[in-house]
Amino acid sequence: MNTVGLVAFALVGATKAMREEFDVFGIAVVGLVTAFAGGATRDVLVNRVPLALGSLGEISLGLFGVALAVGLTVLLDSPEDHPVTLASDAVGLAAFATAGSIVATDAGLSSFGVVAIATINAVGGGAFADVLLDRSPFVLFDDFYASCAVLGGSAYVAAGVVGVTGGTAAAVCAATTLGTRLAAVNYGWRLPTAQALGLAREGVGEK
Amino acid sequence: MNTVGLVAFALVGATKAMREEFDVFGIAVVGLVTAFAGGATRDVLVNRVPLALGSLGEISLGLFGVALAVGLTVLLDSPEDHPVTLASDAVGLAAFATAGSIVATDAGLSSFGVVAIATINAVGGGAFADVLLDRSPFVLFDDFYASCAVLGGSAYVAAGVVGVTGGTAAAVCAATTLGTRLAAVNYGWRLPTAQALGLAREGVGEK
Amino acid sequence: MNTVGLVAFALVGATKAMREEFDVFGIAVVGLVTAFAGGATRDVLVNRVPLALGSLGEISLGLFGVALAVGLTVLLDSPEDHPVTLASDAVGLAAFATAGSIVATDAGLSSFGVVAIATINAVGGGAFADVLLDRSPFVLFDDFYASCAVLGGSAYVAAGVVGVTGGTAAAVCAATTLGTRLAAVNYGWRLPTAQALGLAREGVGEK
Repeated sequence: MNTVGLVAFALVGATKAMREEFDVFGIAVVGLVTAFAGGATRDVLVNRVPLALGSLGEISLGLFGVALAVGLTVLLDSPEDHPVTLASDAVGLAAFATAGSIVATDAGLSSFGVVAIATINAVGGGAFADVLLDRSPFVLFDDFYASCAVLGGSAYVAAGVVGVTGGTAAAVCAATTLGTRLAAVNYGWRLPTAQALGLAREGVGEK
Repeated sequence: MNTVGLVAFALVGATKAMREEFDVFGIAVVGLVTAFAGGATRDVLVNRVPLALGSLGEISLGLFGVALAVGLTVLLDSPEDHPVTLASDAVGLAAFATAGSIVATDAGLSSFGVVAIATINAVGGGAFADVLLDRSPFVLFDDFYASCAVLGGSAYVAAGVVGVTGGTAAAVCAATTLGTRLAAVNYGWRLPTAQALGLAREGVGEK
Repeated sequence: MNTVGLVAFALVGATKAMREEFDVFGIAVVGLVTAFAGGATRDVLVNRVPLALGSLGEISLGLFGVALAVGLTVLLDSPEDHPVTLASDAVGLAAFATAGSIVATDAGLSSFGVVAIATINAVGGGAFADVLLDRSPFVLFDDFYASCAVLGGSAYVAAGVVGVTGGTAAAVCAATTLGTRLAAVNYGWRLPTAQALGLAREGVGEK
């Protein structure tokens, strides 16, 4: 799952950078940032040297994702919207939320800390890439995406509360994240804005 | 003071995010980032796991601030400009500058390091939130805000030089930050830009 | 070299901030971020407290660069494009890429980790400053700049592979970075975008 996620995240990031007409160095950086910055932020927050800097295997996957993005752009108009990419991206979201939950629990964080690290691990790379592309992170106003990682991390914590840990808790987290994300893509779920909620409430108040 | 500050900072951040029509996840994230990212950056720089990830009390205050922002937006046009909010925000600025000064001194940093960490602790959250909102951090070009934290941190260092430490030095730092901030709000203090200074100098040169 | 680099980087950053009409606090912050954020990010990633926070010498150089920028702006139209600044900036790029390579190697990172840290050390400050100025980091789409640090870090790794280490490897890294950067400035080197490459390939496909 991690492998699929790294390739999918790097592909999505590199595609965004190509659309902004970044040069090949920029394309590679935005792709790798999308794939690795979430995990690196997690590692910095729990006081570890980021794993991706110490091994070569993961980076090769990221570069493969970047190369795939460049190759597919010649064939497809928007490879990042292809159903296979969306599904792979959802798998990555689940894998990264699970990895974050496990690392945060091992580091002895609070239940909030576990959910926060799961979410940062899953969506931090994409959010960082959006900042590099000079836009607000899409996870803050669009789509039902980061919420899936929040739900996955919460499921991991809840599993721990009822005594389910280890591999089973990880599976619960991954399944929750993946399931809600696939449902969100399929049914077009979105979170409301304060305007939507506020207007509704104002409307009630006025009548 | 820390309690007041966390609630006020989260409220200010969440209000900004609502104005940008972020969804409820985005509103919560920007509010929590405003309240906690300064302290988390401080902890990462001195090589500690951020405190906010290890306990639940502080996060509850942050979420309370976010909820307050949503609630007050229905009642007030701009709750973040209300005198009570401005005063609470100044209290938070003083509390966070003081916390930063103490942590940096304990970590054995230089006098510059203490002032830098006091400032990052106090304004880093707001600056990070502005980056998420896709704008330049307001502390860099507007208002007399970060300067109060710089003065507070410098007062803490100066107190140490003349042999005043511990609680008294902390009180000096907090009073300096709070006093200068309230004066800045009251009298509309601003720092000059290079244009203002440069033009003045050019004017002198031309005549 | 480090001295020249810190002053040149702070000057370039402060000049950018003046152009955006930041106030004097903002000008100092953007100048210092340009000079120190790359090294601070390196230190955080390898789990050290940033050196710049623990000593006063380096910060003094950064503040000198900021003051120089303010002073030169009165005399020159764009001090950051002056040949002396461009050459000093190239020296800084080489010094920082070399420092990053050495620290990353000492921390036991992989060959990718060494190249990544060398690049982050060399261009991270400028990229961070661009984010504060609310623009995409220029190194991602413009100029042949970060690529020189990538080549320098790679040369350091390659030197290690063939048994050349210590001061000689550092000299190879610095010379590679400085040489390619000066050549890039002189001959106007740029990396291609995907559009440039893709269009070429499409053209081949169409005919």
